[in-house]
Amino acid sequence: MRKINTRDFRIATRTTSRDINRRIALNLIREHQPISRADLARHMNLTRGVVSVLAQELIEQDLIYEGATGEAARGRKPTFLHVRTQDRLAIGVDVRFSKTYLMLCDLSGRQLGIEIYDTVFSIPGFVKDLASRVKKMLKRHGVNVPCEGIGVVFPGMVDQRTGRILNAPALGWRGVDIRSKLAAATGLPVHVENSGRACALAQLWLENGEVTAGHNFVYVSVSDGVGTGIVVNGELLRGRDHVAGEFGHMTLDLNGPRCMCGANGCWEVYTSNLATLSRYFGWNLSKLSPKHLKHVERKSFTIVDLITRARGGDAKALSAIQTSARFLGLGIAAIVNTVNPDGIYLAGEITAAWDLIEATVRSAMAERILTEAAAHTPLRVTSAQEYPRLRGAAALIAAPTYAAPRVA
Amino acid sequence: MRKINTRDFRIATRTTSRDINRRIALNLIREHQPISRADLARHMNLTRGVVSVLAQELIEQDLIYEGATGEAARGRKPTFLHVRTQDRLAIGVDVRFSKTYLMLCDLSGRQLGIEIYDTVFSIPGFVKDLASRVKKMLKRHGVNVPCEGIGVVFPGMVDQRTGRILNAPALGWRGVDIRSKLAAATGLPVHVENSGRACALAQLWLENGEVTAGHNFVYVSVSDGVGTGIVVNGELLRGRDHVAGEFGHMTLDLNGPRCMCGANGCWEVYTSNLATLSRYFGWNLSKLSPKHLKHVERKSFTIVDLITRARGGDAKALSAIQTSARFLGLGIAAIVNTVNPDGIYLAGEITAAWDLIEATVRSAMAERILTEAAAHTPLRVTSAQEYPRLRGAAALIAAPTYAAPRVA
Repeated sequence: MRKINTRDFRIATRTTSRDINRRIALNLIREHQPISRADLARHMNLTRGVVSVLAQELIEQDLIYEGATGEAARGRKPTFLHVRTQDRLAIGVDVRFSKTYLMLCDLSGRQLGIEIYDTVFSIPGFVKDLASRVKKMLKRHGVNVPCEGIGVVFPGMVDQRTGRILNAPALGWRGVDIRSKLAAATGLPVHVENSGRACALAQLWLENGEVTAGHNFVYVSVSDGVGTGIVVNGELLRGRDHVAGEFGHMTLDLNGPRCMCGANGCWEVYTSNLATLSRYFGWNLSKLSPKHLKHVERKSFTIVDLITRARGGDAKALSAIQTSARFLGLGIAAIVNTVNPDGIYLAGEITAAWDLIEATVRSAMAERILTEAAAHTPLRVTSAQEYPRLRGAAALIAAPTYAAPRVA
Repeated sequence: MRKINTRDFRIATRTTSRDINRRIALNLIREHQPISRADLARHMNLTRGVVSVLAQELIEQDLIYEGATGEAARGRKPTFLHVRTQDRLAIGVDVRFSKTYLMLCDLSGRQLGIEIYDTVFSIPGFVKDLASRVKKMLKRHGVNVPCEGIGVVFPGMVDQRTGRILNAPALGWRGVDIRSKLAAATGLPVHVENSGRACALAQLWLENGEVTAGHNFVYVSVSDGVGTGIVVNGELLRGRDHVAGEFGHMTLDLNGPRCMCGANGCWEVYTSNLATLSRYFGWNLSKLSPKHLKHVERKSFTIVDLITRARGGDAKALSAIQTSARFLGLGIAAIVNTVNPDGIYLAGEITAAWDLIEATVRSAMAERILTEAAAHTPLRVTSAQEYPRLRGAAALIAAPTYAAPRVA
């Protein structure tokens, strides 16, 4: 039960009911396409006549189109409905400490082109370079329809409403009005988001048919740090100050090693890729800094290599990974005890070792989760190959088309 | 932006728009009563004619009534609208380890009668006793309208949907279908909830005019343990397994003292009333058990007495309180970093010492909260005299009348 906000409500109008049903129809077509009007009517429990009117409106709005004609045992053959995504394009950008990923895709998140290059740390340089790459990419792919926007995700604190980067320590950027700079340079609408939350957006808006954890889930992404995105009732939680979901900085041990955030014993100090590598190389966890990130880059020895060594019989490598896995499970336990989502998605290189670490993660969860049922919260590993951050960047552009109308 | 759940959606009908607007009107009348139709129209940005139709429907549904006639400079004098709550009654029950609180109130939460008695630990005894007390209370207050229901809150894990107590360690109850037992014994509709979450419900549904933290807040209640309720977008978060909001059992120190839940170093081990008293009396935090609760009961020395001693110059008492205050702040920091609510409500006896501990709490928050803005999350102390749990129990009955219609 939701309370109506008497200081921020939406009055329903004459068209509200039809707007709602049209949007429901669009989402059902998107999920079940190709789908006939008759099947859509069954899904919506409405008459075929009512559904035909909704479909006609969606066609007129260029949101769906009629495709092939199906077979019917008798009578008129049905025409299948499809969501129009192929010729609606978006750009996704994932800015990381080392590399920047640039993707051209359609509104379903289907990748049409990708480019990976060294991150430009100067802000004017970054903007100019990105604008030129976007232009070239659109040209290279012979795009003759307007691109609907650019979604950019950053590692750090982002104010999605104003389009400002509040603080991105890995880039050394603070208080940067990146949205208006990029919009001015590209002439396209720009949306920005934090990369941890972007993964949750990709899962919410671009994945299909997730029954168990579709609308209440937490996405945990383990990389240089630990980013998480919380989705409650089909909506990403951003919070009053854009820090919602920073489970990476909850405490595991008040007297633990110092985290880059300045506090001690944060979850990510124990379970990030850097933490895992540090255990293997004998680095002091308390003294980790962006320098180590550079070091790791330079050596080009990554967690993937560590997993390879562990699989090859390197006991020290396996132990470093298992220790991180235990802490991963302990942190997940806190997510379960506090947010208690329908499911948790896990991403990041360490999940490539899921067969090795699942039991460790599960047993650490059971140590601290309050009920047995909750300890069995579904965990789903997403493949690192799917570019969840990039897809999340694209989801920033796609979501408004499909979102539920705001009412009451 | 909310994603439509294609497996659980609500089709809008011919009456949906009017249902939505009527419910908005009801909430506005509730907040601004007494209010004229003209003022209501201004709040809703609708014509007076449209609003009069909505008001008429609400009158016909017995949800509002017309009260006194107001003054007008010229023309027809306005009739003021009021929400009909006085003759709509509910029973709230707060079951605690030591005492059970029983309240008769109207749907605005206004207390008409209260009774406090020793908790009955046998389940059949509890049910029989409560049914008889409810009957007597309704009779004593000459209630000649049907009571709309009984809301009961328990310390422990409750499945609000099925009305079952999953596990209430303080009572020794596990897997008890309490709702159907109480409904059978009283002949009234019964709703159950966890007491920590009930406080959040009271804040959400029965408090008026909270601007800063009205629809996204966390309610932290410090007592024998630490209970929290999370409200996101005007809705209480219950979670897949009814454990959402158990911040009391997040880790502050993996190697810390053992908690009654079985894990080590939970937040509540450091900041509950029992923890504070233990520090003063030199009890071993690791060995706390329900026995100590009984001990505290027997001695009748409570945290309130400790605060009195601290104010009287007892340095050891003050130190015990300040140490708990620091841990209170460290736990709040985790709430801010993960859920990042618009505000946090604090309840429990220790808040009577707020003037002594606020600086300590704030400084502990600043130690760990990621941004300065977030470190300034509003904290609001609610008075322990307001019976937040009891009011939350009553809110279980009141809420459905005012909740937003579910659409899309």
